[in-house]
Amino acid sequence: MSTTAAPLPATEPLTVMGAGLVGSLLSLYLARRGHPVQVFERRADPRRAGFQEGRSINLALSDRGWRALGGVGVANDIRQVGIPMTGRVMHDVQGNLTHQPYGHEGQAIYSVNRGHLNRRLLDLAEAQTGVQLHFGQQCLGIDLKKQQLNLLDTATQQARTVPYTRLFGTDGAFSAVRGALQKTDRYDYSQDYLEYGYKELTIAAGPDGSWLLEKNALHIWPRGQYLMIALPNLDGSFNCTLFFPYEGPESFAALQTPAEVTAFFTRVFPDAVPLMPALEEEFFAHPTGSLVTIKCFPWKYDDDVLLLGDASHAIVPFYGQGMNSGFEDCSALNELLEAHGDAAWPTIFAEFQQQRKPNTDAMADLALYNFIEMRDRVADPRFLLQKKIEAKIATQFPGRWTPLYSQVTFSHTPYAEAWAAGQRQDAIMSRLMPHIQAEADFEQPAVQALVQQEMAAQA
Amino acid sequence: MSTTAAPLPATEPLTVMGAGLVGSLLSLYLARRGHPVQVFERRADPRRAGFQEGRSINLALSDRGWRALGGVGVANDIRQVGIPMTGRVMHDVQGNLTHQPYGHEGQAIYSVNRGHLNRRLLDLAEAQTGVQLHFGQQCLGIDLKKQQLNLLDTATQQARTVPYTRLFGTDGAFSAVRGALQKTDRYDYSQDYLEYGYKELTIAAGPDGSWLLEKNALHIWPRGQYLMIALPNLDGSFNCTLFFPYEGPESFAALQTPAEVTAFFTRVFPDAVPLMPALEEEFFAHPTGSLVTIKCFPWKYDDDVLLLGDASHAIVPFYGQGMNSGFEDCSALNELLEAHGDAAWPTIFAEFQQQRKPNTDAMADLALYNFIEMRDRVADPRFLLQKKIEAKIATQFPGRWTPLYSQVTFSHTPYAEAWAAGQRQDAIMSRLMPHIQAEADFEQPAVQALVQQEMAAQA
Repeated sequence: MSTTAAPLPATEPLTVMGAGLVGSLLSLYLARRGHPVQVFERRADPRRAGFQEGRSINLALSDRGWRALGGVGVANDIRQVGIPMTGRVMHDVQGNLTHQPYGHEGQAIYSVNRGHLNRRLLDLAEAQTGVQLHFGQQCLGIDLKKQQLNLLDTATQQARTVPYTRLFGTDGAFSAVRGALQKTDRYDYSQDYLEYGYKELTIAAGPDGSWLLEKNALHIWPRGQYLMIALPNLDGSFNCTLFFPYEGPESFAALQTPAEVTAFFTRVFPDAVPLMPALEEEFFAHPTGSLVTIKCFPWKYDDDVLLLGDASHAIVPFYGQGMNSGFEDCSALNELLEAHGDAAWPTIFAEFQQQRKPNTDAMADLALYNFIEMRDRVADPRFLLQKKIEAKIATQFPGRWTPLYSQVTFSHTPYAEAWAAGQRQDAIMSRLMPHIQAEADFEQPAVQALVQQEMAAQA
Repeated sequence: MSTTAAPLPATEPLTVMGAGLVGSLLSLYLARRGHPVQVFERRADPRRAGFQEGRSINLALSDRGWRALGGVGVANDIRQVGIPMTGRVMHDVQGNLTHQPYGHEGQAIYSVNRGHLNRRLLDLAEAQTGVQLHFGQQCLGIDLKKQQLNLLDTATQQARTVPYTRLFGTDGAFSAVRGALQKTDRYDYSQDYLEYGYKELTIAAGPDGSWLLEKNALHIWPRGQYLMIALPNLDGSFNCTLFFPYEGPESFAALQTPAEVTAFFTRVFPDAVPLMPALEEEFFAHPTGSLVTIKCFPWKYDDDVLLLGDASHAIVPFYGQGMNSGFEDCSALNELLEAHGDAAWPTIFAEFQQQRKPNTDAMADLALYNFIEMRDRVADPRFLLQKKIEAKIATQFPGRWTPLYSQVTFSHTPYAEAWAAGQRQDAIMSRLMPHIQAEADFEQPAVQALVQQEMAAQA
């Protein structure tokens, strides 16, 4: 065991490893509080020509993300380039459409381009006094005792040692910072992959950049064991993502030739295929991504290292909350800095992981739950009827019934509380729905009596 | 991606990484089938003078382990140096004793010394034609594509590359072989630590090597949130293990001085303290061990690498099944070799992981379940009454009610089946026990009617 150097003075920079969405937003938060911040990023600067995007193109920004962006004053700027999606549009195999609003009038989630958002946050971070960005810096290892990063400059291939006083690991699901923590004793860690991969495809823009599907919606082709979704882009196109088993009769393994791809899509997504001129080419050119849930604990090492975002809680994308929960990490940390002061790192790190861990665990469960809902349940008329009845209950009992989706997406209720409330609502609906065959049944005296009784029991 | 060399001829040796209990037994199995086997072990030869034991000293051998040892003809040899334990003896805080038999007349688990067992298996392996043992060989990494081990000779500090055709990873909970598999895509992995550590202590032998507690029993001091156990040694001593929280009012963190240790032990283990002359010295000299559950999947890489034992399914020690399940891996693999022939590795590897994974997952759950039972429930008179009633049901319905403990310990029923049957039995007992206040109540007509009804429903 080596001797730890004496703590550096408070004017020493904070260190952020990873300049993706969460790292760049965190750097802004920390710098605006007056801390010098040095940021290291493995990849090249995404604002340079020739940069290759590595990840999914569209993201769904919702209230938690907006609040975190608002905290550093960039929400309005981003909203200009987001497309509001007010509900889901389900496409059945005959091409029939069903609409389901996400919330009440005026509520929406926003389709935004990951690359644009990241580049905009980097512009703001770079313009911010105190922030220094360093790209092409791969973390080869961390000496937690000596508080040193071992960094490789990917351009010069020179390795060097960089000391840190506080290190924030925002380097994503395959975090090098977490990798160092994983080697410490009694470190809880899990990585769980779905048996599903994803493939990104494109629905082309119409003539003059028009949208060939309803613009202000998230489109879903639910097919029981798999699904495709599409989110709108500003140029009139949609980014589609197929979530599909790796193996089995209908799977990536079963589609080996362009002819097999087209035959399959024509059979199961007939209304989409005419809008996808590059289908065959994209299917084989684009990589198949994997879907992992990562959990770990602790999120900190002593008072020196803290993990945020996907580094500590990567989730599957089916609730659209991966980025939003990472951004909420930034605003939650900022609130703790407000509460305890900028020197109280030991308290802040400890409270941060204690407060956030149960919530991000709940969000991981919710994301898997919504996978089943999106690929299967949204195609079920009984499920859609139940959602309508829930909306009626919400109207009848203002403030006493917030649908689970709304609590997760349009509120700042901690995820764990939202999930617990959603499970109570599910239990109530499983008792009510046997008495309801159509929307109008909700007004029947017997049903109303049951509803009153259930709601009284909740009070 | 590098080119894979053509498969080597079948006379090329099989490679076993790790010469602990499972690795040495596996080597014997493979060599007796006619395969040349080269074995690499990180540590020095434990049969050399000066070797330091690194792990718990006593193990409880039960039927699965005996069958696996019997398969290579070493069961009788080991039985000579094992001490049968026919039941549990619970010690309460007043020093009162309660007996609970493990099974029926003639059934026992055996206390054996880990080091002796390992050394005996190594002697047999070394004497076996075809086996080559190499100690002091640390695995620095594995090139799965090139099928090469990178080994460091710990004596000379020389690293070298060793090719393999089939590699068996029997290198324990912190397996280097699994470490290589973990880096492949879509690898499911988890490590979960209990908030408890363990400390090994000694109850000394009496004059002339006599046993100062009942010899043929596993002794338990159940204390609700923690426990101590003791297993007999041949020399008259007992090895004690304290399972204890790391943090909290009664914890390792709370015992910092010899006086605190003695005061605590005297208060909670009063009958044991007079038998533990080295308590204070051992408490601070012996390390505090951590307790981890490891799960992963797949257990194989292509047809080249297979994990067995703790490398793929390390569990907590509370059911005494860690070694037994690892030994059962060896006999299960041998059965697949018998069924499919010694050239059918692709089939054998695939069937092995498919067959064993659900069973070792169930065993991991059972081991955690037994932690609660041993530290808490065995001190509850209602629990002990229930166990007596279960024994009566087993007698009344021969072959139709095998207690969970017996299925796990004294049978070869797959662990997953045993666990499912145990859960059904738990459900039945939760319905019966409210009608039973004493052992004699079992004979009451109303209780007998209920029992008949429950057993008919099981048929």
